[in-house]
Order: sequence, then structure tokens, then C-alpha cells
Amino acid sequence: MNLNQIREKIQIILTENELPQDPTSFLLDQRKRYISENCLLVQPNSVESVQKVVRFCAENGVPITPQGGNTGLVGGSVAKSGILLNLSKLNKIRAINLADNTITVDAGCVLQNVQAAAQEAGRFFPLSLASEGSCQIGGNIACNAGGLNVLRYGTMRDLVVGLEVVLPNGELISHLQPLHKNTTGYELKHVFIGSEGTLGIITGATLKLFAPAQTTETAWVGVESIHDAVNLLTSIKNQFAERLCSFELMSRFALQLSSNFSKINQPVDSDWHLLLELTDSLKREDLGHLLAEYLYQNGYENSVLAQSEQERQNFWTLRENISASQRDLGVSIKHDIAMPIIQVADFLENCGSELQLEYPEMRIVVFGHLGDGSLHYNTFLPVKDNRAYEQEGAINQIVYRHILAQNGTIAAEHAIGSLKKHWLAQVRTADEILLMRAIKSQLDPNNLFNADKLLPSV
Amino acid sequence: MNLNQIREKIQIILTENELPQDPTSFLLDQRKRYISENCLLVQPNSVESVQKVVRFCAENGVPITPQGGNTGLVGGSVAKSGILLNLSKLNKIRAINLADNTITVDAGCVLQNVQAAAQEAGRFFPLSLASEGSCQIGGNIACNAGGLNVLRYGTMRDLVVGLEVVLPNGELISHLQPLHKNTTGYELKHVFIGSEGTLGIITGATLKLFAPAQTTETAWVGVESIHDAVNLLTSIKNQFAERLCSFELMSRFALQLSSNFSKINQPVDSDWHLLLELTDSLKREDLGHLLAEYLYQNGYENSVLAQSEQERQNFWTLRENISASQRDLGVSIKHDIAMPIIQVADFLENCGSELQLEYPEMRIVVFGHLGDGSLHYNTFLPVKDNRAYEQEGAINQIVYRHILAQNGTIAAEHAIGSLKKHWLAQVRTADEILLMRAIKSQLDPNNLFNADKLLPSV
Repeated sequence: MNLNQIREKIQIILTENELPQDPTSFLLDQRKRYISENCLLVQPNSVESVQKVVRFCAENGVPITPQGGNTGLVGGSVAKSGILLNLSKLNKIRAINLADNTITVDAGCVLQNVQAAAQEAGRFFPLSLASEGSCQIGGNIACNAGGLNVLRYGTMRDLVVGLEVVLPNGELISHLQPLHKNTTGYELKHVFIGSEGTLGIITGATLKLFAPAQTTETAWVGVESIHDAVNLLTSIKNQFAERLCSFELMSRFALQLSSNFSKINQPVDSDWHLLLELTDSLKREDLGHLLAEYLYQNGYENSVLAQSEQERQNFWTLRENISASQRDLGVSIKHDIAMPIIQVADFLENCGSELQLEYPEMRIVVFGHLGDGSLHYNTFLPVKDNRAYEQEGAINQIVYRHILAQNGTIAAEHAIGSLKKHWLAQVRTADEILLMRAIKSQLDPNNLFNADKLLPSV
Repeated sequence: MNLNQIREKIQIILTENELPQDPTSFLLDQRKRYISENCLLVQPNSVESVQKVVRFCAENGVPITPQGGNTGLVGGSVAKSGILLNLSKLNKIRAINLADNTITVDAGCVLQNVQAAAQEAGRFFPLSLASEGSCQIGGNIACNAGGLNVLRYGTMRDLVVGLEVVLPNGELISHLQPLHKNTTGYELKHVFIGSEGTLGIITGATLKLFAPAQTTETAWVGVESIHDAVNLLTSIKNQFAERLCSFELMSRFALQLSSNFSKINQPVDSDWHLLLELTDSLKREDLGHLLAEYLYQNGYENSVLAQSEQERQNFWTLRENISASQRDLGVSIKHDIAMPIIQVADFLENCGSELQLEYPEMRIVVFGHLGDGSLHYNTFLPVKDNRAYEQEGAINQIVYRHILAQNGTIAAEHAIGSLKKHWLAQVRTADEILLMRAIKSQLDPNNLFNADKLLPSV
């Protein structure tokens, strides 16, 4: 069925406002590397409309690509044919249940709106990431998003209580009730979480809420080695437990860049920098004192506690501006990696050495969430245009070889998409990929749902 | 292949100490309702031995039933033919990683030994349930065990970082590295968790550890209604957040039984009783004061704080002795149910009314973990022998009808096993069960692994 035929049929199924006149802004992906083409954009405004479109696709063998906020970094929400189904119009907060501490939302809700709805109800929804002003809950679930609060609250997977999914045959699975204990057969919810739109369309979710913080204390700590950083993390996690929300690592070079860019002085001078934050749901006047004393007594004297909200904001600006400040270095080859925390030091040493040997002019910007073992590992060659990408494959090879040697992962929080599907067989066994294919083919026998993503081509 | 032939072949594959002389103590299940027969008990002492047995079974079409501590309550670890593979000899603590806060263990480790190993390392492993002295980690994972600390720490599913599984073809999947962020294809770990031995044999796991409590405060609160109890739970969860570890409910009748049995006075007089406990990883002298003040200011004046460890123990004894104290009432028909907390009041009223109408002589003992919505709902008819079970089907029908009407689950923390597999189609859609069958048949095409459990017969 060609695009005109699809359009004709879909016009009968959907209402006019579900068929946007100008799809332009939905086609190019966030990284400007992938572009949707030869497809029809639809924006259903109800679960029933999603089901109608899906049934139409199933009956006519039309490919279908689900899209949320289109903020993904691996080309997962890009269509090359058939229908591009954007969830933006499914954007209602359905219910808040304070007894069960849950919020039930449409999949097209923007993350920031879910955070705001929680706050309005006197609660806290912890998922937080750079694109929270435009990314959508459905996409966060499909990619198992991570972000800033994983150390304390886990990834999106840990925050989902229940899901509503339109299967590739158009049938609805709806388990939105907040059940805190339930073991009735294989847990299919977790198969859909992280499935990147290949198994159906998530239309709604019930998510966990938490108590908001009443006390926040933020410290900047300089350490001479990753080893010292990991030692501090190990002991402070046991002392302050779930209060520890953030434990961010920055290299001397990363901080220099951001300090110059932000026009904010470095809080301390050191080879490695840590930004750590504690929160408490109770007012606790002495928390800052306890933290300062703890750092001092354990020999982390090269440290500063934020003495005001302004100073705290400065700490975070230094951390958050690293990305922006490195743009002058040229085009970066980025890596979304994570590993056991205990192996971060070896990874940085071994991988860094090999890269510097191979590319003497390379600059490496290292920062990230040491608290959960995930790093931003950005490499720059002195090439300012897209010719830098010519080395991407070779650089990826080196970085991923080292990350696998440290039992790490090549996809920490951005998922697989188009970008990394040829890497999947390196991190999953043949039996696992066969099982993934069996799941895919049971639900989507004609391979219509985001067909060229996640699973490697046969 | 008959049992003698199996034994002959297995004797060649395994060493003598992996073939126990007397299997008697492994055959009868915990509830004395199911018994293994016509099977050969093996106790491999290495992952390699497990693989050898599994390969033998796959090659010869021999059924295989994995068994941990044999403490299950739904007949899940009972074999009716082939091999009964008991994991008890795979019982080593493999590693503790304090930077990542994880412990890696053999599947046959007894839960209590894992708790003890964590404690020895200055950490806390939170899974805790009545059979912890004999149940095994592999069984806890296979059944997604719940227990006393779910309110704060989640079920076993939430505590598993990584798994090692021998697949039905004998191949090993091993993902024991502690990755706190990882999204590489469909999350198969969660398919194995809760799969009740139908998809392979879990041989090892990496589990989360936590900081131990430095402060514990325990209160007993009398309330006039479930409504009042849920209101308190709602607000106290937001005030004290993750400090709230236990929020246990007992009916007047349940407490009377236990008080008489335990020879401990009831702390307060009321229609409904709550036992709640807060813990904190920091020393916090004023926590008891804060809790008392909170209860008083919110109108929960009919309450007592434990003033000593002895008093705290008495509170818990009253709660824990309910099971033992009800034995004089006769044979109980038990229900392992959970529901949204907000619907507990309606369930108790509606289900109780119908049961009392149908069975005027019935006594109902209600208690459980209100904090996570799961209840022990035990019904007694004045029949002291097993004739009580004649009414089991009819009573189940009523209770489950009401629990489903409240969006609850018929299997909160004991899983499905043999006992409830004919109920699965009531709580999962046809598409979901088809997907479960597809998963099962991809991994275990000859249906050898715990074949008659979990999934309803075709």
C-alpha cells in the first residue's frame, strides 16, 4: 500500500485534528543524524484511535513507528515508511492515588508535566533528565530512561507500577491498578519496558510517587584519584543510605572547560571533582554538619559545603554546563556507557591509554553519574565538522572493547535504536537473541512495529 | 525412559554425593498437600553439574523439576516424573562488592545465610519472611517472594541486580555484573524472575544490599476503621518517607486470638490495630518523639510507642503469633491476595458480608501488610479435619470474585504453582497467555521444565 492509499484510508479512521497538516517538526531526530521520510504522521487523541490505526496497519501490512517527544539519541523514533504515530495528543494526567502513592498518566504526557502534577499533589516524581521539558513518559518507558536520580530511585523501570499497551494486533493490555505485590505468570510489563516501540504502543502508565525533600545538603569534594572517589562513595552510601541522591564525577579538564564557560570559579583545585547531594524527607538541621564532619573525619578535607542556595546552584551549573562548554573542542564522539562502579578506575586508565596512543591529539572529556556507574565519555579530535564522524566506528570499537572487558554495558540509558543494533550480539547470547525474536514474532508476526530497530538484522 | 534407566545414566554423569540415598525429606511439600513421586532426586554441587543434568534431560525428553528449600505454598516444587533437581548443595556466597553494594550468591543459599553474610559485611539484605531459615534464594527469585519489608524495599524482583540461569537446552546465561543502568534489548531477567522453574534453573544471583538501621521506633495504633488506617498510612508515608518499614493491620478478632495465645496484653482496645515501625540509617534520638507527636497531632491518640526493646518484641510477638493462635479455630482456607490500598476497605466489607451470609458460622481472621496492600484472609468453618477443604473451591470463588472486582490479585507473594494455574486466565488476557506460551516454547520446546505448573493446561 503506497502513502497516498494509506492517507486516504486513515482519513476515514481518524478525525481531522489527528492528522497534522505540517509534519516537519517531527521528522528530524534530536541529534540531527536520522530523518523520517516516506511516512504519514498521525497524532491520535485517544487510546481507541491508537487501536484503530494499529488495526488498520495490522490488516494492511503497513509499518508503524511510535514516537514520543522525539528526544531519543539512537534514532529509535524515526520512520522510513508507513505510519509515524506520535503520542503528543494523549497527554492527560488520569489520576493520582495518594494511598498507593501513584500517578496514572497518558503516555504522551511530557515528563515535566508529570513532575509538576506530582508536586501539586504534595509528592515527588523522581525521573529527571536533560530533555524533561519535551520528552514523554511513553518514550521514557520504551527506552528505560535513566538521568540524575537513578542512584536513589532507580531507572524508569523501577518507577513503573503498571502499563497500558496496544498490542500489534490492536488488542489492549491494561494493568494500571497499583499492585505492590503480584506474581501471576511471567512479568510481561518488564518486557514492554525498554522494548523501544517494537512490541506495541504504550498508551498509559501508573508510576510511583515519593515524599518530597525537606532538607537538601550539597558538597563539592576534590579527590586525587578515582580510587579515592569510589572509596568515598562506598562508605558514604552506607552512612547516609538513601539520602545520597547524587554522586557526580568530573575530570579536571571537564571542570576547567565548564568553569571558563560558566564564569564560575572552581570550588576546589584537584585532579577529580565530585558533586554530591543528600536529601531528607524530614527537616534535619544538623545534616550539613554531619556531612561536613563525615568528610573531614574520613580525610576528604579538600571539600566545600554549599552555604546558600546560590552556591548550590553554582555547583550544579558547573556540572551541567560541561556539555555546552565542550562544543568549542569540535565534534564529539559520545558513549552512553555504564559499568560496575568498582571497575571504573581500570576502565578509565586502560581505555584512555589506548585512545591517546592511537590518537595523540584526542581530548577526552570524562564526567557522569559515578553513583550508578554510568559515564559520559566524550572524545574529541581536532576536526570541527562532520568529518570527525569518519573515525566514529574505530573509536567506538576501542571504547566498547574496554567497556566489555570491565563487564560494562554499551547502552546505559539511551537504549539501542538504530545506532547500536549491530552491537547487540556482543552483549547478549545467541539464546537470548532467539528469545527476543520469539517474543517479537509472537506479538508482531509481520514485523511492522519499529521493524528496523533494536534487534540486529537477520 | 523409565526411572531405573534415568538413574543408571545419571549415576555416570554425577558424583556419588550428588545422588542422595534417602530422598524422603524432599518429597512432601510444606502444606502437606502435594507429594513428589516416581522421580529421581539429584543435588548437583556445581553449575556444571546442573548443566550436565539439564543436557541429559533435554537429549532424552526427561521432565525436570527444580526445587529450592521446598517451602512453597502452591505445590510448585513437586515432581510427578523424571528428575527432581534440588539446589541445596549450590550454597556458596560468591562475592560481596561494597562499592556497588551487591552480594553474589549461589541459588541454593538459604535466605538467612544471605542476610547473615550481608550483616557480617556491615550491610543489610532486606528480604525477610517466615520461612527464611530454610527457603532458598533461587526459590525466592522463582516465586518473586514478598514478606515483611516490601513496603520499603520492594519484592524479590526489586532486589535482583543480575541472574545466572541454566536454560532448558543446557546453555548458561550469566549476567551477574552489577550494572545499575543497562538497556540492551528486552529485559529477560524479569522474565526469569517469577517464572517458577518453568524456563530453566536459576543457579546464581547478584542482589542489592542496603545500609543497616541505626534507629528503630515502633508504635501500636488503634483505629476505628480501615478508612482511618488508610488515611494514616497515606500521610505518614509522605512525612516519614522511606523510614516507614512496616505498616501491619490486625482485626480485633485476630488480635484477641493472639493476645490470649501469647499471654501478652493488647496494647490498646480498638476495632482495628496497626503495628508500624520506622527505621533510619542515621542515629536520630528524636525520631520516637517526632512519631509520637505526629500521631497525637493527627488525632491518632489511641496509640503507644514501644518504650523498650522488650515492649517492641511483645508488639511483634502479638503480630507474628496470629497464625499459630488461630489453629484452634479449625482448618483454615487461606488466600494470598493483594489489592490497591485504597480499595482494601471495600473489599473487606463486601467480601465479608457475602461470606457471612453464605456461611453464618464462618470466622474470618484478617491481618497482613496493609502498607503494601496484601492481606492474609483466613476463613474458618467449624470443622476440625480436612473435610473443611470440601468448601475450599466455593470459598475461593467468592473471595477471588471480590478481589478481582477491586482490581486486586489472587497471587500476591506465593505465586501460581499447581494450586492456582486454572485461575491464570482470569487475571491475564488471552494475548498475554499466548505470549507466555511462546516464551515457554522457545526456551523449552518439549515442555520438560516444571511442565504442569503456572500455565493453565491447554
